[in-house]
Amino acid sequence: MLKGIVTVSLKQDVLDPQGLAVQHSLQSLGYSEAQNVRIGKSIEIWLDESDLKKAELRLRKMCEALLVNSVIENYQIEILELPLELEE
Amino acid sequence: MLKGIVTVSLKQDVLDPQGLAVQHSLQSLGYSEAQNVRIGKSIEIWLDESDLKKAELRLRKMCEALLVNSVIENYQIEILELPLELEE
Repeated sequence: MLKGIVTVSLKQDVLDPQGLAVQHSLQSLGYSEAQNVRIGKSIEIWLDESDLKKAELRLRKMCEALLVNSVIENYQIEILELPLELEE
Repeated sequence: MLKGIVTVSLKQDVLDPQGLAVQHSLQSLGYSEAQNVRIGKSIEIWLDESDLKKAELRLRKMCEALLVNSVIENYQIEILELPLELEE
């Protein structure tokens, strides 16, 4: 069993109204050092697979097929090996 | 300038209907190895601050004040030092 983590973020030129709203809220709360906020997704997928390379390839395909809109989003993949008893 | 990354995930016992929907979609698409899917947020915040320790403390306060609902969510903080020309 492997755990894949896909971090999906909006491309740099894409407007992020949610991030902007959070940035303004932080500044109203006195956190004036918060200069720019972007909000993306963090998708955790437990994979019934033991081969790291194969898992990464399949995860990349899942991103392209469903998880990521490549017109407006970028993604990063991380794969962790977890012993069963440590799984969340 | 520092970049903080806050990863917000639902606590283990909290139902995640969005994750479940994605899991079912992946399985319908033939990715039967996708056993469990949880969807969280990845929040990037550029901080006008140079002290790593101070930035982490402030970021933690932002999480507690606004970014994270500690009743149902957990969070992790990561802080990166970025030279200005490398900022996204």
